[in-house]
This record gives sequence, C-alpha cells and structure tokens, in this order.
Amino acid sequence: MRDFAQDHRWLSINTATIRKSSGADLPLPAIIEACVRKGIRAISPWRDQVAAAGLANVSRLVRDHGLALSGYCRGGMFPATDAAGLKAARDDNRRAVDEAAELNAACLVLVVGGLPGALQGKAAHKDIALARSQVRDGIAELLDHAKQARMPLAIEPLHPMYAADRACINTMEQALDVCEELDPRKSGENSERPQAALGVAVDVYHVWWDPKLQQQIARAGKERLLAFHVCDWMTPTTDLLNDRGMMGDGVIDIPRIRGWVEAQGFAGYSEVEIFSTGNWWKKPHEEVLDTCIARHKSAV
Amino acid sequence: MRDFAQDHRWLSINTATIRKSSGADLPLPAIIEACVRKGIRAISPWRDQVAAAGLANVSRLVRDHGLALSGYCRGGMFPATDAAGLKAARDDNRRAVDEAAELNAACLVLVVGGLPGALQGKAAHKDIALARSQVRDGIAELLDHAKQARMPLAIEPLHPMYAADRACINTMEQALDVCEELDPRKSGENSERPQAALGVAVDVYHVWWDPKLQQQIARAGKERLLAFHVCDWMTPTTDLLNDRGMMGDGVIDIPRIRGWVEAQGFAGYSEVEIFSTGNWWKKPHEEVLDTCIARHKSAV
Repeated sequence: MRDFAQDHRWLSINTATIRKSSGADLPLPAIIEACVRKGIRAISPWRDQVAAAGLANVSRLVRDHGLALSGYCRGGMFPATDAAGLKAARDDNRRAVDEAAELNAACLVLVVGGLPGALQGKAAHKDIALARSQVRDGIAELLDHAKQARMPLAIEPLHPMYAADRACINTMEQALDVCEELDPRKSGENSERPQAALGVAVDVYHVWWDPKLQQQIARAGKERLLAFHVCDWMTPTTDLLNDRGMMGDGVIDIPRIRGWVEAQGFAGYSEVEIFSTGNWWKKPHEEVLDTCIARHKSAV
Repeated sequence: MRDFAQDHRWLSINTATIRKSSGADLPLPAIIEACVRKGIRAISPWRDQVAAAGLANVSRLVRDHGLALSGYCRGGMFPATDAAGLKAARDDNRRAVDEAAELNAACLVLVVGGLPGALQGKAAHKDIALARSQVRDGIAELLDHAKQARMPLAIEPLHPMYAADRACINTMEQALDVCEELDPRKSGENSERPQAALGVAVDVYHVWWDPKLQQQIARAGKERLLAFHVCDWMTPTTDLLNDRGMMGDGVIDIPRIRGWVEAQGFAGYSEVEIFSTGNWWKKPHEEVLDTCIARHKSAV
C-alpha cells in the first residue's frame, strides 16, 4: 500500500468539492488555478462546469498546467419513459465520452440513473427492474462508442439510498455483473491502457457498508478498478445528498478500503468528492483544499 | 397471493405509526383502543411503550381484545466496547424475549446495532467487521434462550444508510447467511410453530432497492419469513429516519414484493411501520389509521 503520509502526489480533487467557496459559486478556471497553487496534480471536473467555461478553454488550461484527470463527471442517467428520452440520453452520453477523451480523462464516470422523473420528485413508474434493464442496454450501446474513443467507462455503484432517483446500480456486485456481461474479455486490455473498457468507480461513501466489499474489490481486479473516491460518512447524516464528511471526520475506515483496492494493483489517484451544503461549501476554498491535503496524508 | 382489496383482516399496525397523534404522545393503551375500534386485528408494539404502560397491563389488554402481535419491537443493539456492555445487551435481549413470549408475539424483531456510540454521534471505532462479529455472537447466545421460550428471532436487515448507527446487517443475503450459520436446521420446525427459530423480518423500506431481493426471499422460504413490514420510499426523502411514506405515496412496488413473499407461503400480517415527523405524526391518529386501512386495500 502506498505511503500517503509524506506528500499529496496521489490526491485528486473532484471539482464539486470546491464548486462553492464561502457559499459563492467558484468557476472551473478558478478551481483549476486554486488546485495548481496547492500543488495538486489531478482533478475530476463536472460537465456543467466544463460547459460553462468552454471545453476548448478547459482543455487548454488542463494541458498548460499538466493536470491529470482522475475521471470526468459524468455520464449515465440512461432510463427514460419513451424512445425519444432514451435517444436523448444516448446522444448526450456520446458527447460525454467525446469530452472526456478531449480532456484525456482516466475514465468517464457513469451515474446510471434510476426511475425516470424521480429526481424531480415524480417517478413515472415503480419498475426498478425496467430501469435496470434500460441501464444495461444504455451502457451496452455506449460501450461501442467509448471503445472507439478509447475512453474507459466506470460504473459508479451509488449508495442504495439513491436507488430511486440517481442510480439503480447500488452494489459492487451488481456493477461487476454488468461489466462481466457486457465486457467479458476486459476489452481495453490490449490497447495502450491497462484498464478494461468497462469497470467501476469505487467511492467509499457509497460502498463502505457492504459486507461483500472486500470480496467484490478482489473480483474487480486491477483492470476494472478505474477510480477511487473518498469522503466520509457522518453520524448523524442530516441530508441524503449534501452532508458528506471530510475524510477522518466520519466512520469509514478509508485506509482499510484503500488497502483492498491497492492490493489489486490500483495505482491511480485518490479523488476527494465532498458535497456539503452545511459545512465545507460555506468555507473558503483554500481552507478546504488545505484540509483535503492534510487529511489525504492522515486519514486516507 | 391473497386479495387485500376487500377487507383489512391481514393489516397490523406497528405502534410507532401512531405513537404521536396531532403531534402529541399517544400511550399504548390508547393506541390499542384506537386499533380495536377500527377493526384492526394485530399490532406490533415497542418495548418502551410497553414498559410505560406496564407489561402485565398490556398483556391483559391484548388478551381481552383478542389482538395478535405480528412482532415485538425490538431486541438487538448487540455491539459494545467492553464486556460489561456486551453483557448488558445480552441481559436486555433476554428480557425482550421474555416480554415477547408473555405477549405471545409472532417473533422478536432484531435491530442488531452498528458501531457502538454512533447513534449518539460519537462512534467508538470504525471496525464494522468487529461490530458484525459481535452481532453474530450476540444472536448465537440469545438463540438458546429464545428457543427455550419458543420465541422466533427475526433479524431485520436495515437499509444500508443505517449501517453505522442502527444495524450493520443490511441485506437479506447477509441476514440469511447468519441464519444458516446459527440455525442450519431451521430448528423451530418441529415445535408447534411452522417457523424457524431464526429468520428475517422483510421491511420493504429497507430492502426494496436490492437487486437480489427476489432471489433472497426465495432462499429464505416460508420457515424464515417471520414478518412483513410496509411503508413507502419518498422522493425526495428529507430525513434519513423519520420521513417514511404511506404505502402508495412513494416508489416501492409493494404488491410485487408481497407477491414474492407470499409465493413462499408467507401468510402472516402486513405490518405498517411509518416514522414521519413531518407528516403522519402531525395528523390525528384516527385519520392515519383510516389511511392505513385504505392503502392496505389499494397499495399493498
């Protein structure tokens, strides 16, 4: 297991973590500058932030600063109620792959979606098996495009509390079942990338509770472990989405899980992704980054 | 699958559902009277409410009204930081078994506990594997006492969002692994009860998201399906504990899950358990019971 105590060379900042600074929106170019000033070598930006700043502009900034992208957030949201909705999701996901390729991201993270309309508070139906079937079909179709673009797709199993509205893939086992069905040969193996074309993003917040976590990380193996995300689970948690904790402030044994991931050969970045309306988003972003660096060394 | 549309003979009310009426505490004897007035044949009371009203008094009320208990809430909370804590939990759980037997409950529901101290906001450690090991040992020890009392123990897998503070058994598969390890012969089979001595309580709120749910319900079989609890998952859910919905108001396909349970031969009560600070606990309990009855017929 790598020693993180000495420096933060393997720290990546998911840009959602400082998308607000002292409560105000922080645009992506300012986020990039702030990370560079702190000696952070990698980020994982969100599509809406990239769109606001302009893809070409962001691509140039990233290249000029020599920044790596530990991932690109995000594709997915496959389920829909009709053919037009499914097509719109398909087209948008292809654009996400192309953007990720332009930015040379390590992978495109997939938050696969749940029951159509549920995120807006009005689910169109209750058939989660149907949603899962649409997710499977959507990934299968996107995978061809992603292979051509040589962009690995990382299914992110989301915590079961998001099954209705954000992602109906909720465990590592379920995500890996999809990977093995759609990409049995780990088809990226023979390209210049060591990763499979289809794998998983392991976010400790979503999977820490899973009694089969160690077993499924081993099943994933190096080829399918495409990203590693960290934050912490607070007790109590006051909001289902935006009360994520800083590493070390909650109950997740992050070093243990990182040990399992690295035992498989994972050697990528540890990406901090914190949504925190009530705490971290209220603070100045410099303070948040300093804390991320300190906790990366002491609690990851 | 039984037809629930015609009457509410298979409705049970978990007393937490109306423990507050128009925002004020409703004592257990008043809850019992209210249920009886509505022709409800079964309840599942909580220990603190029974203690407040007196066990002998509640036992007499239940007998006099011919009420069944679809379960007794609850045993569990096994993990502790030291031997004294483990012993206190053991002793308290034996008393819970004895109370359940005195009340002739169908089972004692086990909410097994998580990381010691997490419920109070200060987890003593982060070793969920240790907590799970203590839970296993606690159930193993309690099972001897429960068998003597002929009181089936129903492990309730709780939603993964409660893994830290309420229950570190979070899926049906995990609960059934424990059942098969500790009670491989389904040891209740040869007593006058058809149930195993150790089984599960299936609460749709906790397990609806699980891609292996149907498979694991089949694995449980009639002998280990000891209780069936219903409410609904709201989108959005505004509170991790106390924003449970009335059946039909959320996204859970309850009839489908009931169909899976009944396909195994389950023929017990459908128990309504709703924690709802912001909605149902603010209403008069008569209105809540009327709604439970209507939704039992239309949405369960």
